[in-house]
Amino acid sequence: MNDAATHTSYRTLPLGEVHDFLLSVFAAYGFGPEDAAAIADVILRADLYGIESHGIQRLMRYHRAIRETKTVRVDAEPETVFETPVSAVVDAQGMQGQLAAIRSMRLAIGKARKIGIGMVAVRNSNHFGISGYYTRMAVEEDLLGVCMTNSEPILVPTFARKAMIGSDPIALGMPADPTPFLFDAATCVVPRGKLEVYAKRGAPLPEGWAIDETGAVCTDPQRVIDAILARRGGGILPLGGAGETMSGHKGYGFGLICDLFCSGFSGGPFSNHKKDDSSKANTTHFFMAMDYGLFGGKAEIRAHFSQFLQELRETPRAEGCPRVWIHGEKELESEIRRRREGIPANDKTIAELRRIAADLGIRDSLLTTYH
Amino acid sequence: MNDAATHTSYRTLPLGEVHDFLLSVFAAYGFGPEDAAAIADVILRADLYGIESHGIQRLMRYHRAIRETKTVRVDAEPETVFETPVSAVVDAQGMQGQLAAIRSMRLAIGKARKIGIGMVAVRNSNHFGISGYYTRMAVEEDLLGVCMTNSEPILVPTFARKAMIGSDPIALGMPADPTPFLFDAATCVVPRGKLEVYAKRGAPLPEGWAIDETGAVCTDPQRVIDAILARRGGGILPLGGAGETMSGHKGYGFGLICDLFCSGFSGGPFSNHKKDDSSKANTTHFFMAMDYGLFGGKAEIRAHFSQFLQELRETPRAEGCPRVWIHGEKELESEIRRRREGIPANDKTIAELRRIAADLGIRDSLLTTYH
Repeated sequence: MNDAATHTSYRTLPLGEVHDFLLSVFAAYGFGPEDAAAIADVILRADLYGIESHGIQRLMRYHRAIRETKTVRVDAEPETVFETPVSAVVDAQGMQGQLAAIRSMRLAIGKARKIGIGMVAVRNSNHFGISGYYTRMAVEEDLLGVCMTNSEPILVPTFARKAMIGSDPIALGMPADPTPFLFDAATCVVPRGKLEVYAKRGAPLPEGWAIDETGAVCTDPQRVIDAILARRGGGILPLGGAGETMSGHKGYGFGLICDLFCSGFSGGPFSNHKKDDSSKANTTHFFMAMDYGLFGGKAEIRAHFSQFLQELRETPRAEGCPRVWIHGEKELESEIRRRREGIPANDKTIAELRRIAADLGIRDSLLTTYH
Repeated sequence: MNDAATHTSYRTLPLGEVHDFLLSVFAAYGFGPEDAAAIADVILRADLYGIESHGIQRLMRYHRAIRETKTVRVDAEPETVFETPVSAVVDAQGMQGQLAAIRSMRLAIGKARKIGIGMVAVRNSNHFGISGYYTRMAVEEDLLGVCMTNSEPILVPTFARKAMIGSDPIALGMPADPTPFLFDAATCVVPRGKLEVYAKRGAPLPEGWAIDETGAVCTDPQRVIDAILARRGGGILPLGGAGETMSGHKGYGFGLICDLFCSGFSGGPFSNHKKDDSSKANTTHFFMAMDYGLFGGKAEIRAHFSQFLQELRETPRAEGCPRVWIHGEKELESEIRRRREGIPANDKTIAELRRIAADLGIRDSLLTTYH
């Protein structure tokens, strides 16, 4: 498969083989089989959903965090440092982000089972993959789930010229029929990965995505990426774009709220103080699970909401538009397709997997077959 | 004062006189003195904040709802129809929206005082003014506050051509120093009132605000307003604009979430089934109060968050931009100024107040002085 957009070629890898490869990799780092399987599941879910940026493409980043900067501590033992019946603060002690997140969402779910709601703020954690993985954990327990995380600063506040807030996703999942509502949105207009795709293509950015170090709208993707990495100003605009005309101040506010819940409530650093290449784990998260039976009969609430979603699906379409989607439908449909067909990986990613395997002394059929 | 933008002239009314006038009006409808004062305070807060659309400009709408359609029942007695230690569902029984909202936020605050969090979903209510009034109630009790409401459908889902979701504001307030964080944002890109201002001016809308009944981006404000009122399609785009390029699907998702919390959890109608001229009160709200002491020492959390806000204020500004604001600062500064200087009202609004006074047989110095 050849992706004309990025001039890289893609191969489709069988899901089971990628899964086994990931188990070998995380076992080689020293994780137990259960933890390795949990991490692999979160990574693969991103590829199944079609969110390439957070799938096996990101393995090299985890590899560096575990082996080079040692931001991730394989033997970390998280500590609950504050707790009430409805809330907790967890110090993840540098644990791999996926493991800290799964534990923390489980803690929230346990509280929701007992008293209807559980909220857990986490500090000293690491990158955890897609937020939507953890809200779906709650949804699978017939609960509403919320998940947020801070990240390196890339979002520029309205009227500023320096990134101060992370991509700061807000994810919310709610059970519904026939499929759940699974919302997961960075509060900046687009994630950094999109800029990288445009840079590879040599294509100009749409106006309203990013600004340069003076605060002017900038359509040169490489210039913006370089400025963000060097922290010399510039960055990605909030949802709503530049200034207030398209209400960019609202996206800025949603990002600020994400940082409040993650960093404000966990006591960890806000996004503007976060550096990914630090040897100190400095990622913060927030998880909530809520039993919607707090508001009456669950079957009735679920049917009422599902009916609304169905009416949205059936909204008359704009001319030339194929479909009105509910959030999560694209991802769930991609998951069904890719479970059957396999996961597309580009050559650069496959080369990275091979380097990781060499580092770890892993001989795997995935790498001998797909070279 | 002459507003060049709308070709209407403004006069500045003394705050005390407008307050007394509102008390007379709501007493004439049959509200007791405490309730009349509560409603007046919410209405005036909008004018103090500079949110003209939700201030005395909206009195005619309340007048019609009480006297003509009788959507509002002056003698309504709200009923708590479902309750747990952390949650409740309130049937407002057609109560004036401000009164139902204040009672429901007080109920949420009481729960937050006892167990750390309280959430209240409300159905069969009416228009309640600005969402930010109720989150500030929580903030004044040193709690985090959340408030949302459904509204008549004006937001068009991504790729659709018909409004299905309300303006659906999400408001969140959090204590901080020197001033609180007070976020209050419609999830559509702009409120309907902005289209009305452009229509009065005869100016074209910025591209990306609204679409016509075919789903095409439309810059003719009157055409969009007429289409919304006639429910023949068209409407305002979600935060993020048309399609997915600027992530309009995220604004659509935030609007959907607002409707879930308000209508999904209260059992009332979703925005697409709501009509303001109905004789049946069909507005739904959601309130949450949360003690942020659920996550540790309050002084420490408040200082940590306030420090972040200060760093945001001090972010280097984009060239030509005067200031990086924190949400709520503009409103709080306007309030200080207008408490001293009075409230601007345009001639059309003053004429409406006079008609209301005539209907109710009120003789008031406000109307004899400012004619």
